Amino acid sequence: MKDFVIKGQILYSASPERIVWTENGYLPVVGGICRGVFSALPAAFSGLPLEDFGDRLILPGMYDLHLHASQFAFRGLGMDMELLDWLNRYTFPEESKFRELSYAERAYEGFVTALRRSPTVRASIFATVHSPATLLLMEKLEASGLHCCVGKVNMDRNCPPSVRDPAPEEAVRETEQWILQALERFSNTKPILTPRFIPSCTDALLEGLGALRHKYDLPVQSHLSENLGEIDLVRRLSPAARFYGDAYDRFGLFGRDHRCAMAHCVHSGEEELERIRQNGVFIAHSPESNMNLASGVAPVSRYLEMGLQVGLATDLAGGSHESMFKAITHAVQASKLRWRLYDNSVSPLSFAQAFHLATAGGGAFFGKMGKFEDGYVFDALVLDDSNLFHPQPLDLLSRLERAMYLADDRNLAAKFVDGVRLF
Amino acid sequence: MKDFVIKGQILYSASPERIVWTENGYLPVVGGICRGVFSALPAAFSGLPLEDFGDRLILPGMYDLHLHASQFAFRGLGMDMELLDWLNRYTFPEESKFRELSYAERAYEGFVTALRRSPTVRASIFATVHSPATLLLMEKLEASGLHCCVGKVNMDRNCPPSVRDPAPEEAVRETEQWILQALERFSNTKPILTPRFIPSCTDALLEGLGALRHKYDLPVQSHLSENLGEIDLVRRLSPAARFYGDAYDRFGLFGRDHRCAMAHCVHSGEEELERIRQNGVFIAHSPESNMNLASGVAPVSRYLEMGLQVGLATDLAGGSHESMFKAITHAVQASKLRWRLYDNSVSPLSFAQAFHLATAGGGAFFGKMGKFEDGYVFDALVLDDSNLFHPQPLDLLSRLERAMYLADDRNLAAKFVDGVRLF
Repeated sequence: MKDFVIKGQILYSASPERIVWTENGYLPVVGGICRGVFSALPAAFSGLPLEDFGDRLILPGMYDLHLHASQFAFRGLGMDMELLDWLNRYTFPEESKFRELSYAERAYEGFVTALRRSPTVRASIFATVHSPATLLLMEKLEASGLHCCVGKVNMDRNCPPSVRDPAPEEAVRETEQWILQALERFSNTKPILTPRFIPSCTDALLEGLGALRHKYDLPVQSHLSENLGEIDLVRRLSPAARFYGDAYDRFGLFGRDHRCAMAHCVHSGEEELERIRQNGVFIAHSPESNMNLASGVAPVSRYLEMGLQVGLATDLAGGSHESMFKAITHAVQASKLRWRLYDNSVSPLSFAQAFHLATAGGGAFFGKMGKFEDGYVFDALVLDDSNLFHPQPLDLLSRLERAMYLADDRNLAAKFVDGVRLF
Repeated sequence: MKDFVIKGQILYSASPERIVWTENGYLPVVGGICRGVFSALPAAFSGLPLEDFGDRLILPGMYDLHLHASQFAFRGLGMDMELLDWLNRYTFPEESKFRELSYAERAYEGFVTALRRSPTVRASIFATVHSPATLLLMEKLEASGLHCCVGKVNMDRNCPPSVRDPAPEEAVRETEQWILQALERFSNTKPILTPRFIPSCTDALLEGLGALRHKYDLPVQSHLSENLGEIDLVRRLSPAARFYGDAYDRFGLFGRDHRCAMAHCVHSGEEELERIRQNGVFIAHSPESNMNLASGVAPVSRYLEMGLQVGLATDLAGGSHESMFKAITHAVQASKLRWRLYDNSVSPLSFAQAFHLATAGGGAFFGKMGKFEDGYVFDALVLDDSNLFHPQPLDLLSRLERAMYLADDRNLAAKFVDGVRLF
């Protein structure tokens, strides 16, 4: 069922600087794994069923390294505050509703429906502090065909009681129960340890989570250096930490021996970047959110030059929409304003770089994903751009760039995750 | 035919700071003119046919103060260059194709189709230097039900021959012929004088255009202070001008006794702003274009505080899309980055301000338009947001804000221009 050949206009990122394409190319998939891209189908694969997508674009699926399923309901609202006020005014009140399973059912159904038809194939998702609702979300994601990591969020301070974990020992016990349930019930939906961020988590909680991480060998996700007020707060709350990231690392929650995704990294200093590099931490660049909450713009081209692991994120609902196509355009646009308004020594992102972030850059967080090279898992989108009017011929790279600015869910003709076609 | 009552969830900008709304409101239209918004229908209008749009949002149509119909074909492409290089690499080659009427037919058909189904009710449009193609565009716009100003572009230097006007005397004669044709053939599609920008236009050409403007009492549109390289070039080309805007004003092409729209004004200095204010020039704020071409961000909230006339523009294809909804979100986002990265003394735009720009702000360029107050022309959109999932109740203002981020052409249930329903 996972053995076939795809034919169409094939593109993917060979590197952050270079998108490669094959016109009328053949992409054999065996056991859900890409076997390369060819201008003429090698004899070895000639016996496989062929799906010919004609003139449509075949591109890797996209990897959303950071979004809040529980915030889908208020996407596009409240885009006039800064982070800490926005959390208190919109986010925590909304998240508290998820203690009611009936609300979680409605809210998460809408979210999963939207994510399934979006360009996203795999995502690293925040739920809420509530385990039952989180398991409900995971159940829906498991049924959707998407492959995601989902985190029950841990938070035990600086937040209203309605979204607060119990005392650390109890919170850790509850989190462990959630992990065990998740590991038992789901194959393609994985638990990821999710301390909300340092301002939300006492040392005792972080210590317990560090132990859980080690015991179950889990990945970790959190927030890092998004906003200046937040960084100040962390400095006051964690005087023993050398920098914000160190506050996580002290508890073994910052890469090193596990996959770790940190959202934002807008204002990371040199020491923090060096630790990110050493520990192999993935930066989830969230350009729209950073604009909407006026946090700033991360110097992404510099991060790429430094060889850091960088992926892209919608950060729904700091960002307004679940579409990774939009996130790509925001990444380019935000980088241009950073260059023009703030620091012209950090070059703007090219389209190729932004496309790389969304595919190969973020794909690496999930495994050998995000490219169509031999050995990579086949996650893919088939994009029909025929309704994007153009009176002149366009080459494949132009069609791809333009689709990121103009296409929407109507243009997704097919979507494959792990070699399985979702629609 | 233009006498009816609209019922629905009605919103409009009372001022740049304040959006007003009436739930289940009645909006009588007589002779295509709004007679106010009411919670209960006054007896005077009870005899008029009622169109009840139920829970849908009724908002003013949007006014795109600056876009290039001839660039629709390459929207979303080439977003990695600065202005002057981008003009030479993409814009001029594309515009030269419009000397072939068969190409203009295809290209403009696509453009008008898209504009008609967009949130735009009236627009100030650049065509190309070619009169026949420009008249063809105007013919299609006239048939569309939209009400627009269209400019045959004037440009006689610093551009390839294929897009260059003849010598000034001949160019002015040709332009006059185009004006006469346009005035004779079209009712709702008006000619607007369109010197491309100072770098493109010799003094002799500008002088001739100034005379035409006066003779036919035409409005004027052009570009102003978009990019630093451009401003330097103008300084060298027009040594007698005190500042960029003065280079237009010296030929009577900068407001004062006519309506005048100037795109961008990103880097306008104090003298220029004062002249803009005195002359009543409209600033066509083009945030996405200014991001894509890394020009910068205009200090719009400051312009509003100064009482300048400011509207909004997509600047297709410096901007990637014809949707004014997107332009609104770009205006807010760009202003936030300007505040965070460049100058925190100029506050970011609120949603209310950005919505004002797109409706009342730009509407004023076309007449008494852009609001639902007594005496205003009825240009309107009916927005069906029922497919924008939300598990919790939302007030009208939240629904409106969110729709700007999430809605697309599928959500436009109806569109009225000048009291006439287009669809």
